[in-house]
Order: sequence, then C-alpha cells, then structure tokens
Amino acid sequence: MNLISLIQQRYSCRKFLPLPVEEEKIVQCIEAARLAPSACNAQPWKFVVVNEINLKQRLVDEATSGIYKFSKFISQAPVIIVVIADLPSFLSKVGSLIRDVRFYLLDIGIACEHIVLQATELGLGTCYVGWFSEKGVRKVLDIPKKYKIPLLICMGYPDGSYKNSDFIRRRAGSDTRKDLKEILSFNKFV
Amino acid sequence: MNLISLIQQRYSCRKFLPLPVEEEKIVQCIEAARLAPSACNAQPWKFVVVNEINLKQRLVDEATSGIYKFSKFISQAPVIIVVIADLPSFLSKVGSLIRDVRFYLLDIGIACEHIVLQATELGLGTCYVGWFSEKGVRKVLDIPKKYKIPLLICMGYPDGSYKNSDFIRRRAGSDTRKDLKEILSFNKFV
Repeated sequence: MNLISLIQQRYSCRKFLPLPVEEEKIVQCIEAARLAPSACNAQPWKFVVVNEINLKQRLVDEATSGIYKFSKFISQAPVIIVVIADLPSFLSKVGSLIRDVRFYLLDIGIACEHIVLQATELGLGTCYVGWFSEKGVRKVLDIPKKYKIPLLICMGYPDGSYKNSDFIRRRAGSDTRKDLKEILSFNKFV
Repeated sequence: MNLISLIQQRYSCRKFLPLPVEEEKIVQCIEAARLAPSACNAQPWKFVVVNEINLKQRLVDEATSGIYKFSKFISQAPVIIVVIADLPSFLSKVGSLIRDVRFYLLDIGIACEHIVLQATELGLGTCYVGWFSEKGVRKVLDIPKKYKIPLLICMGYPDGSYKNSDFIRRRAGSDTRKDLKEILSFNKFV
C-alpha cells in the first residue's frame, strides 16, 4: 500500500474487537518509532506497552478518573501504549529555550505517527488519547516525575461494524479537514 | 514500498541537486499533511512553500543570520516549506492548559512527518530545520505575531554522492538510534 492510502485508511478507532494483539506486531510498531528523526537525534521517548489485563484495568481506572472520564472508551483497547517524554539532550534543550519551541513534543509527534501508520499497515486500529490523568498513569506505572507523559495510544483490532457507522465516517473522512487552499500557499503568507 | 522501508530510507538531506521540484509533487506532500490527525481535529497548521528564487534567498539570509548561521546549508534547497502553527481550537487549548502539554506541537510533528515520508516516497530529500531566526522568517513573509513558526522543512532532489558519504551514513543509519530495549518495555516502566 502506498503512503497516501495508509494515511487515508487511518482513523481514530474507539471500538476494538476482544482479541489480543501479537507482541511481534507491537514490537514492529515501536521499531518504526525507534527509527524516527528527532532534534539533535535526542530520541526523547520511551514506550511502556500495557497489555496485561489486570494492570491495564488499573491503568484505565486511574487514567480516566474524575474530569477524564470522557476517555473511558480506552478500557476496550487490548493494548495501551504509554508514551513517555525522556529528557531532551542538552543541545536540544538549549535550542528549545532560545527558540521557545518544545522540540521534544514535535519529536514525539513524529515518532508516534510512525507507530500509528505502522499499526494501520498491520491491520490494527489506534487512537491517540491526550485527555487522561497523567498523575494516575504515573502512579500505576511508578514513573518518576522528571518524565512527562504527553500521550497514550490505544491499539487493537478494530471493530469494523463501528468503523462503518456514519458517525465514524464523518469524523475520519477527509471531508472533516480544511481545504488545501486554507493551509497551503506559495511564496506568500495568506 | 512498505512503511518501514520508507522510514529506513528517509534521512536528513543537507545537499541537494540544483533542480526545481515539480509543484504537483509539493502539493502531494501537503495533501498528506492535510489528512493528518490532530487533537480535537484542530488542524493547527499552515504551510508556506517558498520556491521563488529571489524570495528564497531573502528568506535564507534572514533565517540564518547571526547565531543561526549553522543552518546556512538550507540555501541549497530548491524548496523551503515554512511550517506555521495556527491558533489551536478552544477545546484543544483548554486541554493543553490543564494537561500542560502543547498539543499543537505534537500535531505539527505528525503532519510534518506525513510531508517528509510522502517526499521520500516521491524520491525527494528533506531536512527538518528548527534552528533559524523566527523573527527573520516572520519579517520576510509578513507573518502576524499570533502565529508561531516552529519549523522549516527543506526539500529537493538529493545529491546522492553526498548521501553515500560515510558522514551521512553514520548519521542517518539505524545504528545512531538507541536500542529497542532502551525505549520499550512491557507492563512496567524501566
């Protein structure tokens, strides 16, 4: 499959079949992230894959408590990848300060999209989740405070019947995106 | 080509052939970015493609002045894509504040990697550039202050002779990345 088909096929999957995901496939996804470029080659990321059922339940309970209950759907996913921001390198940190851009977040976006696209190619569904209790996730996995936890990625075999519902088609389709002319211009800012 | 081959083939190209890039190919790359997922579907991005030679020279001069002269190599690229962060949506902004994660940077990382991977598939070389004078770029393109300019992406047909030099092979190869076991664990933080 060429890249644009892969990109078109990806959607935010919020309903999964009750099937485990082969660890080999999970490793393939993380390998894709491992090779991602990053500012000063800092590779400011770690991934904790949670697929043990009791731990996953504890993680979901803590991650989606209180104001984060909107993200309860993640309990369905057989795999939750906890995306951890490792301290960026000295050079990258100095650059971030001078330029006022947290490059490690750009880097993590890039690496996570490798995971998501690789998963799509392997027939897996994924969903980025940014709305969760970082404190809760930190507690369950005992993650030191010096690390940030910007994202979770849910992963599993998609429930196709849900994917094909009108709701999802509306959300996932390219018709929910801005027109090209709104985001692209040549040789001048518009 | 499958995704992992595309990812392996990508490298930070800093030497380009003096050939223009077809606008159709540039549009294909931006179309790949257009379809990228983003927090709350905010699509917080705009891309100004600079390929007009005089404008590009002015842009390079301003972007790489003073402490940013390390990035002078960008003058060789026939195309410079100026990546602009549009204001995130209200929901995404509230989420960013509560969670202390600037989601728009994750989003822009994702969208830009679509550009870079699409370019790779089309035989084009690219390089992310984060070290440049934002003030200078803002001045040349008259970009209002409410927008951030986190990145430039250089693009062009790669000078293959340079790519194959030892220097680049060392930098681009997977041997410059951390081992999988340093970044991946199952069901516990290590």
